[in-house]
Amino acid sequence: MTNNNKLYPSVPRDKTNNYSEALAKQRRDFVSQQLEKPLQHVSHYSIKAEDTAGNIENFIGVAQVPIGLAGPLLVNGEHAKGAFYVPLATTEGTLVASYNRGMRVITAAGGAKVTVVDDAMQRAPVFIFEDARQARQMGEWIEDNFSTIKSQAETTTQVGQLRNIEQYAAARMRYLRFNFTTGDAAGQNMVSKACFAACEWIQANYPYPGLKRYTLSGAMDTDKKHSQLNTLHSRGKRVIAEVTISDQLLRENLGVSADMLFKMRQISNVGSMMAGSVNNGAHSPNAIAAIFIACGQDAANVAESSAAISFVDVDAEGNYYLAMTIPSLIVATYGGGTALGTQKECLQMMDCFGEGKVKKLAEIIGATVLAGELSLSAAVLAGDWVSSHDSLGRNR
Amino acid sequence: MTNNNKLYPSVPRDKTNNYSEALAKQRRDFVSQQLEKPLQHVSHYSIKAEDTAGNIENFIGVAQVPIGLAGPLLVNGEHAKGAFYVPLATTEGTLVASYNRGMRVITAAGGAKVTVVDDAMQRAPVFIFEDARQARQMGEWIEDNFSTIKSQAETTTQVGQLRNIEQYAAARMRYLRFNFTTGDAAGQNMVSKACFAACEWIQANYPYPGLKRYTLSGAMDTDKKHSQLNTLHSRGKRVIAEVTISDQLLRENLGVSADMLFKMRQISNVGSMMAGSVNNGAHSPNAIAAIFIACGQDAANVAESSAAISFVDVDAEGNYYLAMTIPSLIVATYGGGTALGTQKECLQMMDCFGEGKVKKLAEIIGATVLAGELSLSAAVLAGDWVSSHDSLGRNR
Amino acid sequence: MTNNNKLYPSVPRDKTNNYSEALAKQRRDFVSQQLEKPLQHVSHYSIKAEDTAGNIENFIGVAQVPIGLAGPLLVNGEHAKGAFYVPLATTEGTLVASYNRGMRVITAAGGAKVTVVDDAMQRAPVFIFEDARQARQMGEWIEDNFSTIKSQAETTTQVGQLRNIEQYAAARMRYLRFNFTTGDAAGQNMVSKACFAACEWIQANYPYPGLKRYTLSGAMDTDKKHSQLNTLHSRGKRVIAEVTISDQLLRENLGVSADMLFKMRQISNVGSMMAGSVNNGAHSPNAIAAIFIACGQDAANVAESSAAISFVDVDAEGNYYLAMTIPSLIVATYGGGTALGTQKECLQMMDCFGEGKVKKLAEIIGATVLAGELSLSAAVLAGDWVSSHDSLGRNR
Amino acid sequence: MTNNNKLYPSVPRDKTNNYSEALAKQRRDFVSQQLEKPLQHVSHYSIKAEDTAGNIENFIGVAQVPIGLAGPLLVNGEHAKGAFYVPLATTEGTLVASYNRGMRVITAAGGAKVTVVDDAMQRAPVFIFEDARQARQMGEWIEDNFSTIKSQAETTTQVGQLRNIEQYAAARMRYLRFNFTTGDAAGQNMVSKACFAACEWIQANYPYPGLKRYTLSGAMDTDKKHSQLNTLHSRGKRVIAEVTISDQLLRENLGVSADMLFKMRQISNVGSMMAGSVNNGAHSPNAIAAIFIACGQDAANVAESSAAISFVDVDAEGNYYLAMTIPSLIVATYGGGTALGTQKECLQMMDCFGEGKVKKLAEIIGATVLAGELSLSAAVLAGDWVSSHDSLGRNR
Repeated sequence: MTNNNKLYPSVPRDKTNNYSEALAKQRRDFVSQQLEKPLQHVSHYSIKAEDTAGNIENFIGVAQVPIGLAGPLLVNGEHAKGAFYVPLATTEGTLVASYNRGMRVITAAGGAKVTVVDDAMQRAPVFIFEDARQARQMGEWIEDNFSTIKSQAETTTQVGQLRNIEQYAAARMRYLRFNFTTGDAAGQNMVSKACFAACEWIQANYPYPGLKRYTLSGAMDTDKKHSQLNTLHSRGKRVIAEVTISDQLLRENLGVSADMLFKMRQISNVGSMMAGSVNNGAHSPNAIAAIFIACGQDAANVAESSAAISFVDVDAEGNYYLAMTIPSLIVATYGGGTALGTQKECLQMMDCFGEGKVKKLAEIIGATVLAGELSLSAAVLAGDWVSSHDSLGRNR
Repeated sequence: MTNNNKLYPSVPRDKTNNYSEALAKQRRDFVSQQLEKPLQHVSHYSIKAEDTAGNIENFIGVAQVPIGLAGPLLVNGEHAKGAFYVPLATTEGTLVASYNRGMRVITAAGGAKVTVVDDAMQRAPVFIFEDARQARQMGEWIEDNFSTIKSQAETTTQVGQLRNIEQYAAARMRYLRFNFTTGDAAGQNMVSKACFAACEWIQANYPYPGLKRYTLSGAMDTDKKHSQLNTLHSRGKRVIAEVTISDQLLRENLGVSADMLFKMRQISNVGSMMAGSVNNGAHSPNAIAAIFIACGQDAANVAESSAAISFVDVDAEGNYYLAMTIPSLIVATYGGGTALGTQKECLQMMDCFGEGKVKKLAEIIGATVLAGELSLSAAVLAGDWVSSHDSLGRNR
Repeated sequence: MTNNNKLYPSVPRDKTNNYSEALAKQRRDFVSQQLEKPLQHVSHYSIKAEDTAGNIENFIGVAQVPIGLAGPLLVNGEHAKGAFYVPLATTEGTLVASYNRGMRVITAAGGAKVTVVDDAMQRAPVFIFEDARQARQMGEWIEDNFSTIKSQAETTTQVGQLRNIEQYAAARMRYLRFNFTTGDAAGQNMVSKACFAACEWIQANYPYPGLKRYTLSGAMDTDKKHSQLNTLHSRGKRVIAEVTISDQLLRENLGVSADMLFKMRQISNVGSMMAGSVNNGAHSPNAIAAIFIACGQDAANVAESSAAISFVDVDAEGNYYLAMTIPSLIVATYGGGTALGTQKECLQMMDCFGEGKVKKLAEIIGATVLAGELSLSAAVLAGDWVSSHDSLGRNR
Repeated sequence: MTNNNKLYPSVPRDKTNNYSEALAKQRRDFVSQQLEKPLQHVSHYSIKAEDTAGNIENFIGVAQVPIGLAGPLLVNGEHAKGAFYVPLATTEGTLVASYNRGMRVITAAGGAKVTVVDDAMQRAPVFIFEDARQARQMGEWIEDNFSTIKSQAETTTQVGQLRNIEQYAAARMRYLRFNFTTGDAAGQNMVSKACFAACEWIQANYPYPGLKRYTLSGAMDTDKKHSQLNTLHSRGKRVIAEVTISDQLLRENLGVSADMLFKMRQISNVGSMMAGSVNNGAHSPNAIAAIFIACGQDAANVAESSAAISFVDVDAEGNYYLAMTIPSLIVATYGGGTALGTQKECLQMMDCFGEGKVKKLAEIIGATVLAGELSLSAAVLAGDWVSSHDSLGRNR
């Protein structure tokens, strides 16, 4: 490369032994030298440097993110059944306390019913033609050849299965959106590989004229970002968490009435609509980010997972119904960071480590989001919000 | 509370000594008993339990998130000047390598020019009236009394300053959006407190009829969620990172031409628009989440910070211009989790710990986002994307 | 009804003879009396009052909207082939001239290639259950029983055909979106009736517990309003109009280069994205509204039809490619206002009246939109915009 | 131009006498010849061809759009006070009847309170610099020089006044959005001219380096299209129409209870949010398009004007409160098509023609939208929707 990079030393690397503790140490020394002091905290970890292969390059140590335990949280899922204690990794004071409060009320009310209603991971290539008519023709061909495309895609994976291909048309392009189920993995890499195989096959076998080129992502996946498309068609798990709470329980524990919670939600819904917000709830990403960090999920997926639809009702008996719909919750209990030391332990706390557990984890996250929504929306109305942050938080 | 909660044991707590190591241990024992094995990793930390006060409740230990070091990254900011090595905490294999690759090209090209063009943190109360006309009247009164409202708000803080109040009208409500500068803190709690003081004063002193009630958030803040409003008016820092790279440098290092990168961006922009995506770039949240976790930022703010506007051009000489605009980057170098052990060390690696450093940190994050955008968009086109994840990642 | 309505006289009506010329006259007299002058213009029409039955209630006369003729416009459609002269009903000076200018350039360049790539009209009922799990169960049942639902829906219509049913889940609701093809009618009423029949059958035959009620529209249709859903999945016709124009032709006729048009489009795309605009083009609704009024279309559908995706490119030879994708163009050549006097004549001018013509009309509208996009985007850049409105428009 | 255009005859034109009846006739003959029959309806008009100058080019005649009269509608505006009869030009059967029904209930309930809460017309140029820092500098300069820019802009108009300039930053561009009040005109041309003058002055006088060029629209206006920006900051008039109706009145006249209307609105709000709809109401564009056509407004502005925010509540006494907020209603009582024959008469029916009337017209439209929202939302629930279209509509 050019001289500019030579001006500044490179981070120590070694082609053959890049994940060794020796190299981690060497890199820390590199940093310490610049800092003129040792890295006492970053260097303090219980995992083996060698075990980070596949999770990180240029490993130097760890971030120690405090974990608070919230619960019990009673969950009536199809996979998660019973009371759970949820590890939340965060540095935002008040957060664990607030979720804990919501969990107590939900548990008292009989628990959160949680349902995973959809499940798919996407990769969305785009094919470019000479004109829109050719692109439309390809759309028909894709439909006609779905089963072959599916088998081509699935040659690359033992777990992933191609469920369907959405199609979107603009100008002379055909945007496809491949939906895969991916077992207990989040699956982004799995579907990239599978989709790549499918696209290469398509390019080689497409019989009609006009295909100029394709690219593996036409931005309709939409990976690491929220989109309305995700809200409509889901990405990862679509999770719905519901609870019904008596007016009395609300008043006694949260200091607000069912009616007040219901009415004020209408007001904030209008604010949310005017703002063009992707989430008409209060703060679902707090739970999601905290569990993601604790449990070895990809925290960048908070981008997608931050969307939510809150819905409230009060029934004839005055009971408050609250439902949180999370359309794009990206979770894994296998692969990614799930097998690392603390991450595995946190998953194990909820019996969510490994195969066959991913929907269970999704349900627990859904219930946790519900607890936080309940607690914060009540706090804002009851006037506890500022005072509780004042007593439990920093930033004073 | 009701019996349901009594069915399940509570997480050990102690009103007076809640942040002690003894209690942390007691809670781990509580977990271990259920797990029927000790928590060897979560319990392995170098920080003091006592120091987590203000950052977490029910502390049990830490998540150890691997940190990789990327760099050198040459930044031409107004605050960050020179080459930086950026700590990225993630478990997504390939990520550090990819950012590192982008950084090398940017550095070779002379560095990233980064500018913080706006800076404000919001709290957005809503006032409810009997009709829209009364609500409009309040809008005028707010404008007329801005300086008093400002001084009332600022009684609660030595750092925060009320810059302006946006107003939005719907039905009989008046939605206000207070914009504060908050020094080196992210400022959410600071502005809650200040805005609360202002609202209480408004409620007490509003001279006209019809004010029925107010609530401290009408959802136009929009805290912990993306909104179009954030994209328009910013939240936290609005950061623009730019780089110009010669066609030759691109070809030699990334295997793509300036023209190809430019043309394909048009294709993905259409996909992004159809999807209703909040980010027409590739993956800015990867950098943001990784730095947030390493540096004690609130990872839930990835929700807001995930928005981005990419813009590309090719000049008459064939040079590629890439700009990433991050409208809602929420960062702090003071308060929150910034002073914890590893978090402080990571900030120090970039000389970004403490007062007077927040815009510097914002600039480095902006440059890192730019590096990732460059690397990934080239990889997708050059066909490296799948193969690199295959060699460096998990999820095989 | 209450006294309030008795305070003010009713508009003259007559149950048996409501569409007679006599009643129209009586209503005009009613207005004239209040105005203290006759309605000389509204009363001047060539259609028969009786013929307005089905199109209007309380008929008093007509709005005379000036029609300008633009063309020739060369269209290379699958249905519209050749040169067309397009009637535009508008009162915005400059508009016809501007479209005419764009048409001349397109015709010179060999014409617009236009393709209808999708075609469906929607009705979107919502079914409400006791919980999300029951709602999910219904989703599966709907899929399993699609063919019966289809035949139930189609009992009400000889033309409409149920193509597929989209499903969306939130809280305890299941939102369905029925997609029908509707022949040459726009089809909103046809699909309401068909969907109603299907829903009544579903309600009567749904075998599982928990269905509390349904309503015929859960707002996902989205009738008379733009939505991202429409952009994704179309409503009415999805039309793509394309043209390739040499740089020389652009310079000679529009005073701008291909490169300048291309580059500036990138700038406006960013503005459009920041604004959260539903159309990154310049003004497609001008053409659409003007043709809709001239041709007896429902002008309220400009709401949906106003969305558009513009896409531009410059090829290696410097030719400018412009494509306009209109995802939700709602058109009819049968039913609605198409058979009224002037409306029928205007359709006939383009040989678009009656059965088998609806895609032809859609193509001509697509080509007209393209012409307007070309002309205005060039005018903005060439600086003609203000001066031309100044010489041809009002509002001086 | 090239030969292609010579292949097809031009529409007859005449530089000096283009708006004469003779030329209109000549053009009709041109059409008739192709149709092989005379245009009996398009040719039937009471206006003078000469009077269309400024409204249309290539005039050939008129579209006769049927007008139905709805009312009485009691309006409690600041400008519109009393009962109004509203001319609706449409060809959608049932529409006038439905609005009429809603109007009767609103009138019985004491009328609609309508308030214009904001008022501005926009032009949004963009200035392009070498980098983001220069663009930011211009932002500050614009603020500092606002009064001079204002006076420069206002040299071009006796009516328009520059109220403020919004600023938006992305990449190296500075997007400005000029807000003008425009008296009784819609004002698009007025503000183009004024903004052009201001921009030319800015370009000539900007003292700092880096300004590469500007263009008069950077797409943030957002003219002839909906945007979230319009919903936030209005375009044209922001109108809020409110009504409170007793449960009894609803049940007796519309067959639904206040509670049912309220509850079902929550359901449709979720549908609307999932769809990404710009209007969570039922069909405001029906009223708006029909009045626009009748009253000489620009029907293409239905694009912007189609946005709406509905908000409902039920008070302690069981009364139903319904508010419709129309953030971007573009209306005029002067200029444009307002002075043409039928258009002027229709405006006069509501005493809305000419100077000083524009807010009155906006209020009446707001009240009409409210009436339609009430009627249709009740019909959907009461099951009248399909049957009424069946008896009053076409498309059978």
